[in-house]
Amino acid sequence: MTSYYNKTPRTTVRRRAGRGSYDRDTIDAILDEGLVGHAGIVGDGQPYVIPVLYARDGQRLYLHGSPLSRLLGTLAEEVRMCFTVTLLDGLVLARSAFHHSMNYRSAVVLGTCRAVRDRDEKLAALRAIVEHVVPGRSAEARGPSDQELEATEVVALAIEEASAKLRSGPPVDAGADYTLPVWAGELPLRLAVGAPVADERCTVPVPGYVHSYGRGRA
Amino acid sequence: MTSYYNKTPRTTVRRRAGRGSYDRDTIDAILDEGLVGHAGIVGDGQPYVIPVLYARDGQRLYLHGSPLSRLLGTLAEEVRMCFTVTLLDGLVLARSAFHHSMNYRSAVVLGTCRAVRDRDEKLAALRAIVEHVVPGRSAEARGPSDQELEATEVVALAIEEASAKLRSGPPVDAGADYTLPVWAGELPLRLAVGAPVADERCTVPVPGYVHSYGRGRA
Repeated sequence: MTSYYNKTPRTTVRRRAGRGSYDRDTIDAILDEGLVGHAGIVGDGQPYVIPVLYARDGQRLYLHGSPLSRLLGTLAEEVRMCFTVTLLDGLVLARSAFHHSMNYRSAVVLGTCRAVRDRDEKLAALRAIVEHVVPGRSAEARGPSDQELEATEVVALAIEEASAKLRSGPPVDAGADYTLPVWAGELPLRLAVGAPVADERCTVPVPGYVHSYGRGRA
Repeated sequence: MTSYYNKTPRTTVRRRAGRGSYDRDTIDAILDEGLVGHAGIVGDGQPYVIPVLYARDGQRLYLHGSPLSRLLGTLAEEVRMCFTVTLLDGLVLARSAFHHSMNYRSAVVLGTCRAVRDRDEKLAALRAIVEHVVPGRSAEARGPSDQELEATEVVALAIEEASAKLRSGPPVDAGADYTLPVWAGELPLRLAVGAPVADERCTVPVPGYVHSYGRGRA
């Protein structure tokens, strides 16, 4: 088990510690499967949580957006942040309300962003984000012009302090409750992909990577 | 348009303001459709973002969990928080990498939680959370015992300062890019529900509200 992420007091899973994981492969797999993450920042003591697209490149996460946005404007100032990716796998229906739960996999990364100013790194990061969201897309879409590059803020977050939390499997009821006449089990959930919808002015046939999108996704 | 949520500098959508909404029905609909929200809190200057189940009851959100967890333990101290619900509706593939986007609806609620100590309100809140996640379930599952009630922390967040941000529809490319031989359009995404999986010791048939789960969900 490769585990070079630090287990710190901040990332240690306190509640139901058995569901916690500090294993790199586990954390990376969650980050790679997610599409949208939730970035947390603080401004004047008020936390803000904003959904964003992202990509992982090795031990680094890249986020991007407009420098005019609250999130990217703040992150470029290299403040403490949290980045959380949650995959919802199912609802867990126990015989008692108390033991209801969800099956999920979540990864939490803590750290300080670095604004990416190097042109090559910035281009590579933007390409990684497009590839993360739609593998195969970056070879086809027109890359950013200098003006577009200027209008995009990219920040990098080192994955050094991170943890995962996972639950899977059936409900676990209190012993006496198993005799209750209540259905119990799991309702599996997954992100489903619909048929691609070409825009009105598109005359190009649907490419393979769009047609087969998500087949490899859990 | 009912809009008694305050539009404050904190909740004002800065970037792509046209995607912002402060309309109560819009915000409530997002909160009601979501299953998992992301709660943001601050501890020692470090933001944390944690996924949780929740329910809306009128102008109030209820969250619950173990008093031993970082999140609920902190929230019960009535600190500033952010609660964000994001619904991912699709990926938007433009002809240029720069104009790629996602179709989504997100709601952000800012405020200070109140720990719910009143027994009746606590019971009602827990019931609301079960009902929010699986409508019909709370009538069947065994309700919480005094001991279980004691072992559960419930907090209420007034929805007073909130905003939504929404994007829908096809990509919007730069004029000159429309002639590029690149497929462009939307890849719709939705949360899909699989067939219920009864637990090993369950002899009760699948109830109607489980069988038809999610049919009303977008």
